[in-house]
Amino acid sequence: MITTTNITELRKIRATLPAPVGLVPTMGYLHEGHLSLVRRASQECRSVIVSIFVNPTQFGPNEDFARYPRDIPQDLQLLEKENVDVVWTPTPEIMYPSGFQTWVSVEEITKTLEGKMRPGHFRGVTTIVSKLFNATQPNRAYFGQKDAQQALVIRQMTEDLNFPVEIVICPTIREPDGLAMSSRNVYLNPAERKAATVLWRALYTARQAYENGERNAKTLREIMLDILNKEPLAQVQYVSCADIHTLLEWEDQIQGMALLSMAVLIGKTRLIDNIVLGGTLSQ
Amino acid sequence: MITTTNITELRKIRATLPAPVGLVPTMGYLHEGHLSLVRRASQECRSVIVSIFVNPTQFGPNEDFARYPRDIPQDLQLLEKENVDVVWTPTPEIMYPSGFQTWVSVEEITKTLEGKMRPGHFRGVTTIVSKLFNATQPNRAYFGQKDAQQALVIRQMTEDLNFPVEIVICPTIREPDGLAMSSRNVYLNPAERKAATVLWRALYTARQAYENGERNAKTLREIMLDILNKEPLAQVQYVSCADIHTLLEWEDQIQGMALLSMAVLIGKTRLIDNIVLGGTLSQ
Repeated sequence: MITTTNITELRKIRATLPAPVGLVPTMGYLHEGHLSLVRRASQECRSVIVSIFVNPTQFGPNEDFARYPRDIPQDLQLLEKENVDVVWTPTPEIMYPSGFQTWVSVEEITKTLEGKMRPGHFRGVTTIVSKLFNATQPNRAYFGQKDAQQALVIRQMTEDLNFPVEIVICPTIREPDGLAMSSRNVYLNPAERKAATVLWRALYTARQAYENGERNAKTLREIMLDILNKEPLAQVQYVSCADIHTLLEWEDQIQGMALLSMAVLIGKTRLIDNIVLGGTLSQ
Repeated sequence: MITTTNITELRKIRATLPAPVGLVPTMGYLHEGHLSLVRRASQECRSVIVSIFVNPTQFGPNEDFARYPRDIPQDLQLLEKENVDVVWTPTPEIMYPSGFQTWVSVEEITKTLEGKMRPGHFRGVTTIVSKLFNATQPNRAYFGQKDAQQALVIRQMTEDLNFPVEIVICPTIREPDGLAMSSRNVYLNPAERKAATVLWRALYTARQAYENGERNAKTLREIMLDILNKEPLAQVQYVSCADIHTLLEWEDQIQGMALLSMAVLIGKTRLIDNIVLGGTLSQ
């Protein structure tokens, strides 16, 4: 496993890798969710590159960039075991040198859900992912369904800008009690950790209602809200039942695929989760 | 020479081309300026791709998109003689399918000169060039100094987004009387064509003053303005003596390289031209 920060060196190494090359972009502090992406890439690609970069431009001024958890030595140890070929760990100075002034923006589908709650977030995401794609030139790139809107935004960008990259969306990996794996779970104290299962319970209950025939979007949102509101440590930012293509709320009956999603504060920790009804996003 | 409109077919052909691959992006209606880029690419690259696409998103609502001159059969005849390998002629529907919503924007250096006069113009340029780069994956791309700000904006974008493409800027090709070659010169009637030499005369005279030791930016702008204002058919939009890096006006003395540039209406036809003082932009 080769580790480098330098882009020039990365390009030299990239030129020697047998295709297809898979890229797993991460912000580090790796958990089983990330590792599932790495394993999927290893299965499908002859070479695997993992990038680790906590991207400052996708954090808002009052968000957790500074305290976002980091542990590069442990990350490298985990990746070593997964037969990763290259780990790229650029610095903010390498990615955003003095004079940097170019941005990639996806418009319509970034206006709702996470994009509405976190202005500028997706501009940061699509800009850094464009840079990662251009620097590593992968044939395939792997993203988790946990960040469903992010995956859809990146897929839209990839199609619109004709990046020669296949976007692979992989299933959310959960703890035994249903909590979606996230680097931010480390922020939770024991009581909050217990309360955090409420996101999955809300999604799971709404899915059961859907499977029993419920198609009214308002009813599905209410089912989720009722469960979330019963948890004293939870403060709901949004619950959504949206068209998987436009990410606009279904008003009455769901027609086709729906993304059920939510952002919830558990104490001071902001968690998101989602499931898809009527089809699958992940392959 | 292979001609195609289709991106999938283009990618297949691209995969067979020996590297390095040179791209010459054009809007067609080719003249000696374009052909000089093609010849330069042929000298430096084992394969040459020329794209022809009049890009709607870089034209403002009151600009000349609809009447921009087009002559694909003649363009293909000219390119055939230059040993071009591939000509890509996509349609607007291929480049901007229904649901398209992703834009690439360069910020600071698009705020002045052409960017100030033509809001949204450079966003259209950088978006389409990103798409051309991703679809053709060139090792080098060739642009004319005639559109100096465009070339600098594309170079900035290429660096900022880490496109693995070398941007080559080639000298402006001029008619014997100094008029810079442009597809838009076809709009000029005989009297306007004669008057249009005033741009070059203004630039040339300012350069002579510079060579005789004049370093004051205001004086250089006045020298150009005086000449332009004597031409009854000319209406000046701007004259500029700007820092080649920031594209901001030099206030007093030029320190380093300067871009002398102008946009002038000759009758109803908008022409631009420029020269660089204290160094060169083109290689």
